[in-house]
Amino acid sequence: MVSAVTSRLAQWTLDVIDSRKMALFWSRALGYEIEHDGGSPHLLPPPDAPPGSPTVWLQETGEPKAGKNRNHPDLHVPDGEVDDEVERLIGLGATPVDVGQKGDEGFVVLADPEGNEFCLLYRRHPQQAG
Amino acid sequence: MVSAVTSRLAQWTLDVIDSRKMALFWSRALGYEIEHDGGSPHLLPPPDAPPGSPTVWLQETGEPKAGKNRNHPDLHVPDGEVDDEVERLIGLGATPVDVGQKGDEGFVVLADPEGNEFCLLYRRHPQQAG
Repeated sequence: MVSAVTSRLAQWTLDVIDSRKMALFWSRALGYEIEHDGGSPHLLPPPDAPPGSPTVWLQETGEPKAGKNRNHPDLHVPDGEVDDEVERLIGLGATPVDVGQKGDEGFVVLADPEGNEFCLLYRRHPQQAG
Repeated sequence: MVSAVTSRLAQWTLDVIDSRKMALFWSRALGYEIEHDGGSPHLLPPPDAPPGSPTVWLQETGEPKAGKNRNHPDLHVPDGEVDDEVERLIGLGATPVDVGQKGDEGFVVLADPEGNEFCLLYRRHPQQAG
């Protein structure tokens, strides 16, 4: 019998060259805590994060990144200004990138220290709180 | 002044060739609702999902997928059996894939109908509930 239970988006996994550097960047970007679990860093949401917040797992690889990633995370600042947050993320090691965006889509495109694209949304979907 | 507010992982964005087919697959996989927002489908968590559950945005592209994705989502079945869920996801159009996993890492690797890898975790990180 096939289950009617659905899965949840529980974790975001990213292949990384330098797991120490990338754990520092992503933990500071998201306010997550770093836990080393058999070598690969797990990043865990802080206790005050909303239930359901995904964990992050950084998986070491020897393969360099090739081309634009086909999927990426979008971040949102619940109680802050996007411009301030862009400045903070760049201070942590992010870089603005041009993936052909027009600039009026409601998001800013950045890349992490290994070039993985992510967006910072000006607002979440109207049906989503927080 | 640089803000001390951190960002949250709010959304997972995926480039897709066939947005209709992919919206159907991912909405059924996650139990999300489909909303068409200027053409690109947004998938929204159901009202009973935990508040931090990411939305999903499917962005149409003409570019075919090339190689293994550098990052991917990991799913978890809060109250179900992983084997049943694997069977359900395959019934929806997922395919088991071999990315070199040994089979004892605590996850099953699948791909969506356009070949994007994702994992189904046997359990979440011990520090994460649900």
